[in-house]
Amino acid sequence: MRIIGIDPGIAIVGYGVIDRQGNRLKAVDYGSIQTEAGLSTATRLKQIYDEVTELYQKFRPDVVAIEKLFFNRNVTTAFTVGQARGVLMLAAEEAGAVITEYTPLQVKMAVVGYGQAQKRQIQEMVRILLNLPEIPKPDDVADALGVAICEAHSNTFTDRLGKGRWK
Amino acid sequence: MRIIGIDPGIAIVGYGVIDRQGNRLKAVDYGSIQTEAGLSTATRLKQIYDEVTELYQKFRPDVVAIEKLFFNRNVTTAFTVGQARGVLMLAAEEAGAVITEYTPLQVKMAVVGYGQAQKRQIQEMVRILLNLPEIPKPDDVADALGVAICEAHSNTFTDRLGKGRWK
Repeated sequence: MRIIGIDPGIAIVGYGVIDRQGNRLKAVDYGSIQTEAGLSTATRLKQIYDEVTELYQKFRPDVVAIEKLFFNRNVTTAFTVGQARGVLMLAAEEAGAVITEYTPLQVKMAVVGYGQAQKRQIQEMVRILLNLPEIPKPDDVADALGVAICEAHSNTFTDRLGKGRWK
Repeated sequence: MRIIGIDPGIAIVGYGVIDRQGNRLKAVDYGSIQTEAGLSTATRLKQIYDEVTELYQKFRPDVVAIEKLFFNRNVTTAFTVGQARGVLMLAAEEAGAVITEYTPLQVKMAVVGYGQAQKRQIQEMVRILLNLPEIPKPDDVADALGVAICEAHSNTFTDRLGKGRWK
């Protein structure tokens, strides 16, 4: 099963592509889509949409797992990230992937098994679980891999297919 | 000059297509895109994107004017509307339209000339300015026409083209 984890944003979108075979996880590719602050929001959204569409076409994920926003962030951030998240979900839907969503707390629990884990601990566990030489940079990339691991551990893909798409 | 005004949302997207020739405004078409609450967010976003893309292709607007969110609404609303707004902006960008944004206050000032105007007063002015037999329903449609009128009155399209896209 191939999973792409996504950490949404307007300036940086982190992504992590992993394969799960049984209990084994393998990092296939990871990186980020970055847009320039000087461009219009619409131009940045189109750039994100085009690049992520290319990514989905290249890696053909079974599942796209997207980080859910922290709802205690401020409303302007929620709105801006929401716009980026909209085009990321659209592209995933067009690619025919199952789309799932996880909160940062769910990711912590899945990766470290401890909800109070620090960012650095999570990143180090991501590195170990995927057998990477070093922690991927920027943080958004490590976060995206964490979301993908969370999806791999939730492990209910076949159940889900039986029940149809998640809401 | 052809303008499409958009009132974004996940359940209902209001739209209003108007032509401006000199000081005259003419309503060309108006209505709404509606999605079912039972569907997944990704499915609803794709439906909005597909239908609005069709709309832009049919009416080929010079300008797409989108209502800006009230930032005093709650963060969950901001996030949800943000996602819908993302795909609406993406489609406008792909259609090659100039994209502008107006706050509800700017729309009130442009339509009624008075920032404290009630919703009903704005709707009645929209009806009169566009010479419509009755106030369009639901409210989102009248709101979208209000945004289009706001754009028509801002009347700086040619300046804007000289300066390139708005941020």
